[in-house]
Amino acid sequence: MGKKLTKRSEDYSKWYNELVVKADLAENSGVRGCMVIKPYGYAIWEKMQAALDKKFKETGHENAYFPLLIPKSYLSKEASHVEGFAKECAVVTHYRLKNAEDGSGIIVDEDAKLEEELIIRPTSETIIWDTYRKWIQSYRDLPLLINQWANVVRWEMRTRLFLRTAEFLWQEGHTAHATEKEAIEEAEQMMDVYADFAENHMAVPVIKGVKTESERFAGAVETYCIEALMQDGKALQAGTSHFLGQNFAKAFDVKFASKEGKQEYVWATSWGVSTRLMGALVMTHSDDNGLVLPPKLAPIQVVIVPIYKGLDQLDAISKKVDPLVKELRAKGISVKYDDRDTYKPGFKFNEYELKGVPVRLAIGQRDMENGTYEVARRDTLEKETVPMDEVIAKIEFLMEDMQKNIFNKALDYRKEHITEVDSYGEFKKVLEEKGGFISAHWDGTVATEDRIKEETKATIRCIPIEGDTTPGHCMVTGDPSARRVLFAKAY
Amino acid sequence: MGKKLTKRSEDYSKWYNELVVKADLAENSGVRGCMVIKPYGYAIWEKMQAALDKKFKETGHENAYFPLLIPKSYLSKEASHVEGFAKECAVVTHYRLKNAEDGSGIIVDEDAKLEEELIIRPTSETIIWDTYRKWIQSYRDLPLLINQWANVVRWEMRTRLFLRTAEFLWQEGHTAHATEKEAIEEAEQMMDVYADFAENHMAVPVIKGVKTESERFAGAVETYCIEALMQDGKALQAGTSHFLGQNFAKAFDVKFASKEGKQEYVWATSWGVSTRLMGALVMTHSDDNGLVLPPKLAPIQVVIVPIYKGLDQLDAISKKVDPLVKELRAKGISVKYDDRDTYKPGFKFNEYELKGVPVRLAIGQRDMENGTYEVARRDTLEKETVPMDEVIAKIEFLMEDMQKNIFNKALDYRKEHITEVDSYGEFKKVLEEKGGFISAHWDGTVATEDRIKEETKATIRCIPIEGDTTPGHCMVTGDPSARRVLFAKAY
Repeated sequence: MGKKLTKRSEDYSKWYNELVVKADLAENSGVRGCMVIKPYGYAIWEKMQAALDKKFKETGHENAYFPLLIPKSYLSKEASHVEGFAKECAVVTHYRLKNAEDGSGIIVDEDAKLEEELIIRPTSETIIWDTYRKWIQSYRDLPLLINQWANVVRWEMRTRLFLRTAEFLWQEGHTAHATEKEAIEEAEQMMDVYADFAENHMAVPVIKGVKTESERFAGAVETYCIEALMQDGKALQAGTSHFLGQNFAKAFDVKFASKEGKQEYVWATSWGVSTRLMGALVMTHSDDNGLVLPPKLAPIQVVIVPIYKGLDQLDAISKKVDPLVKELRAKGISVKYDDRDTYKPGFKFNEYELKGVPVRLAIGQRDMENGTYEVARRDTLEKETVPMDEVIAKIEFLMEDMQKNIFNKALDYRKEHITEVDSYGEFKKVLEEKGGFISAHWDGTVATEDRIKEETKATIRCIPIEGDTTPGHCMVTGDPSARRVLFAKAY
Repeated sequence: MGKKLTKRSEDYSKWYNELVVKADLAENSGVRGCMVIKPYGYAIWEKMQAALDKKFKETGHENAYFPLLIPKSYLSKEASHVEGFAKECAVVTHYRLKNAEDGSGIIVDEDAKLEEELIIRPTSETIIWDTYRKWIQSYRDLPLLINQWANVVRWEMRTRLFLRTAEFLWQEGHTAHATEKEAIEEAEQMMDVYADFAENHMAVPVIKGVKTESERFAGAVETYCIEALMQDGKALQAGTSHFLGQNFAKAFDVKFASKEGKQEYVWATSWGVSTRLMGALVMTHSDDNGLVLPPKLAPIQVVIVPIYKGLDQLDAISKKVDPLVKELRAKGISVKYDDRDTYKPGFKFNEYELKGVPVRLAIGQRDMENGTYEVARRDTLEKETVPMDEVIAKIEFLMEDMQKNIFNKALDYRKEHITEVDSYGEFKKVLEEKGGFISAHWDGTVATEDRIKEETKATIRCIPIEGDTTPGHCMVTGDPSARRVLFAKAY
């Protein structure tokens, strides 16, 4: 387990980096910017995937799989798309290695140069719309509602586990529609699906909004997003959904025959969330003792630790515990009974606290005599003694209560960290001293947005869907502002 | 739907290629050798994944994720491994594109050359064992039982949908053990898991065996395999499990402290199955009308087609059908009620036959009057009229019966196509006229194996685990043979 975790108040960034590694979520690999997702971290990601996949299927989407490699020429078909991604593309130029003739090792075989270089997908709009041209002829082929679970590569210069990695895992939805209205509704629906998932599974409160022009996805007409707030007062974009207009349909010549027999370009959306969500999960709930996981996403929901001297005592405890384990599993609760003889109870307590297991049961000799368990909840670290015949009900209560409690705690934090300001001086002061979201008037120009970013590092996280829509005057220029927008420093 | 499928007897290979595309399983993409797996094909793959993943977890394995990109130098650490894979590696040499100065388009930015070139994983032993060095210190860290679901790239020159593609999806298990015995047991266990999956989910009978030295995985001490037989008499390797000895532990310096405190090299296995199984599934069961799918892997198990004139009749039918759909779904049977008004029943019948939906229910006016459904099973194409109150029991029966029936049909075919021969002349004759597996004596030398391959294109598929172990004399050289082995032409 090594030494203690750095405290959040000491160095939030260091706390995060240490926690991700110590809690066995992920670690850096020998490949620049690429991480290894360890089994415990991957088990959380699998739970996220399962919940999201169910929601996608319930909203009519099907999964498919498109190639990892994209011909360079595809990328350049949509002008703003190539501009957004060309600078961070991993490029495959050759397809064979050989032994160096001077015996220095394995080198690229220069004779095996690809005719057209390929890029590793940074996102799949181009290869997918090249395919959709073959799949869409008539209005009867629409809507086409497809999702893909995949890995993508974006050659980032500064990386951090989960938050920004050269390769990451994600899902990307790509849909095609007959009308603009339907495509916009789809993009909005998927933002809602993401918000629902973030709040009800991850217990992470999010603000729904649209991005300003300069923060939009490369090739989108409108980008919808959900924005979360981390415990250090910085925002994190947790998911985006894009209305792509007819940009990709025109770039890849995807037309359909309407009911009236006219040839029209198809309307598109795309939407995605990634392993970045793992970072948001960690940074929203966890504390100085380690991870705090929402019960719905915890790979182990309940751990039972026996406290004993000698194998006779352990046997007696195991006889009590075994039926409980079975009963909990039958109720769909994942339980681990940790009867390893190679580690002491105190070590195990620390380990499960660090790994954020929601409920810990301990049982020793006094509990055996009294017919009780010691039940500890990870979120508040409270412990209580519970009669054996009430322990299942207690666990079921805790599964729901902890899910709610950590959500409410995060929501309270966010409420305290949305500040309304009316002057640029106040803006800078709040940003410096308190952080969080700042609700302020902005004149709607890229110039002002850029100036604020340059001077303060804060960006417009979104124009919220809900909330105050009263017009006012830009805090920087004094020019008219249609409504307040949300600023923050962000991950 | 286009024109009729080519018959198997006319051109088996063409039949396969057409069927995969027409049944909406997969198609070629604009990227050389890379396929698009379409939603219907992907839904079958998802069912395969779910069943396999459950089996892996039941045998104690956890999932994790390792980088897509591998430094070139890792590959060369295990000598026979690099020899096996270097010639088909996609190599990433640059990480940025830019606009060509002459305006000719997007080109590789030569200034953004990687310091060390990376290869796209053709398999992950090297990156994983580089990671295991950090994870394994003591016998308490063993066994390490990890699986990864991932995409891999092998630059094949001649590709075919599912059977051989430049990029494919697979799972790769990588385990580490304290003893040789335990690692061998693991490799054998995973061969058994694959065989169980092939026979009980895919309904594909397989022969378990070990590979000869020249057919072994690059870097393995022993390769276990399951071999299936296709309807054209060619074999298909459906899964492999490798005992890797200490080769990778030595190449990546992975040692552990034993209970006795000695530093020892770790013992390893790896094992994998891929989207190639989709090809095996199609080629084992399907017929001249289209796919035949085992009920356990069919995305749609039952389709219901209404036969009506006018919307009043359709409404009346729907009122009958809706509760049935609900009841079947409650039983975990996937049902589609196809009430599309845009296509005629005959068209729908053909479509679901082509797509291999196991059971088709039709209901028209006479059925409404008589209280019956017409029930058609896809495997035998038999139809019968079933009273409405017996239809659920009938469907449940068919789900089991069809699963068994197509397995037995494939097993009968295989039994008829294992021929024992004692002379090379007979061998060539059987191979030419009948195909299938040929059980023959072989002197155990690579030279004879190579000669047979060169002269007949047949390879030794495996030395079967079960079956005749009587010694004899090689059919080619007359030298002593320890036992009969299985030859075949193979995919």
